Amino acid sequence: MAPEESACGFERVAILGLGLMGGSLARAVRALHPPSGVVGWSPDADEARRAEKEGAISRAAADAEDAAAGADLVVVATPLEAALRLLTTLPGVLAPGALVTDVVSLKVPVRDAIRSAGLGPRWVGSHPMCGGERSGFAASRVDLYRDARVWIVAEGASGDDVRRLEAFWHALGALPRWIDAEEHDTLMGLASHLPQLAANALARVLEEAGVHAADLGPGGRDATRLAGSSPEVWGGLLAHAPVSLGRGLRSLAQHVDALADLVERRDLEALASWMAATRTWRENR
Amino acid sequence: MAPEESACGFERVAILGLGLMGGSLARAVRALHPPSGVVGWSPDADEARRAEKEGAISRAAADAEDAAAGADLVVVATPLEAALRLLTTLPGVLAPGALVTDVVSLKVPVRDAIRSAGLGPRWVGSHPMCGGERSGFAASRVDLYRDARVWIVAEGASGDDVRRLEAFWHALGALPRWIDAEEHDTLMGLASHLPQLAANALARVLEEAGVHAADLGPGGRDATRLAGSSPEVWGGLLAHAPVSLGRGLRSLAQHVDALADLVERRDLEALASWMAATRTWRENR
Repeated sequence: MAPEESACGFERVAILGLGLMGGSLARAVRALHPPSGVVGWSPDADEARRAEKEGAISRAAADAEDAAAGADLVVVATPLEAALRLLTTLPGVLAPGALVTDVVSLKVPVRDAIRSAGLGPRWVGSHPMCGGERSGFAASRVDLYRDARVWIVAEGASGDDVRRLEAFWHALGALPRWIDAEEHDTLMGLASHLPQLAANALARVLEEAGVHAADLGPGGRDATRLAGSSPEVWGGLLAHAPVSLGRGLRSLAQHVDALADLVERRDLEALASWMAATRTWRENR
Repeated sequence: MAPEESACGFERVAILGLGLMGGSLARAVRALHPPSGVVGWSPDADEARRAEKEGAISRAAADAEDAAAGADLVVVATPLEAALRLLTTLPGVLAPGALVTDVVSLKVPVRDAIRSAGLGPRWVGSHPMCGGERSGFAASRVDLYRDARVWIVAEGASGDDVRRLEAFWHALGALPRWIDAEEHDTLMGLASHLPQLAANALARVLEEAGVHAADLGPGGRDATRLAGSSPEVWGGLLAHAPVSLGRGLRSLAQHVDALADLVERRDLEALASWMAATRTWRENR
């Protein structure tokens, strides 16, 4: 009997890093019909054992090279700095024809590291726009990627390989969409990093004013949810922060000051038109 | 057969305003066993008819006075400015022994208007910390108040009346808690109004930078959710904005600028300790 083709288009997927992103990806690939083999590796051996025990991976690898060898898709699912280090170890172990992707939320530094490692044509970057402030395998879930936009960045890969990776994400219920690496990072500085730091700033103001998180209503809770994000995950991203983040923060500070002016002089008309404009923006999705 | 006592402690509840707050309150009171009579009034006659048709109210009143007359609990559930106007109409129609409450999210202006109307001893103010950026009866739901903190402000009412109103909120599954009017408004300027305007500022930055709401991940969506709030509801609140809001906005602008400094000079250590501190704050609820 000929082996059935796997639903995700890859027979053996290596996932390096089994936290929220990698762990959820492993669960999702294993839940397909038919599933692919998933070899997982985590720098935290307990996490890898737990993933194996829960069936999220078929096998826990001894190290990243062991996991990657023989896979036809290698997914780097660690925070940025670890991903840049891991990528340099891949050229020696990658199987012929194997594809490399990653789920790092900045693409320029990953692309540059990939090029330096001579793997440009083997790489198609991914950035799934999903996650949560909880991290680690314990936070992983099978449906994390369902309906999530996944930005696809490809600069040296063949059209066939890009389409294979798109089909992979489609199989998981995600919504892949192409973008240029620089354009992607500029967008993320605004759409992702700026809301993150805005939440950190807001939380700090509230803490300094003696407001407890328990005193927040649903609106305040949503607005500060990102203040619970992992400093470890963000460290690497902020080390490579796109210029758009700094500019966005400066602009935000100015707009917040402008709102303070309007509030203090009770300019209700200007406040109402500001709110009406952002309401329209928010509803146009 | 003697009439059963109503589960909420009031036989006939008048609800003035049938939007998200009033409509949800009507639904919740009617869903109790045994329910109370709920007479509703809305400045939007269609809304009142719809509420009656859906069984959220027992009867649609012709006007606010008609609704309030004969009720043993009158709930003012309109935006702030309308509430201040409505309260002046109550002294002539309020039944003996009837209690007045409101769900306005600032308590000082309501208390002052109540005092001017000579109704201080008949009033116990409420501020349920729930809601949503959608407004109107169409957004109302039976469980809006479940598990919601409700601030209770009483300055002239008897202890018995305050306990009756507490029991009313308990019956709806809410969590009443006493607070002083001034302290409440100072807290709201920070815990509620500040996150609101921070979201409006953030949304404006993103819009000006050409980022669409559809480009946001779950974090960015949460951080900007309040940007969809109703300008009408907020107009009255901002007209009476507590001093703490302006101060909070100034502090936020400074902190956002400080974060821009840290990002631009790549001070990862300071950024990490900032994020770690707000994570701790956020998790202590």
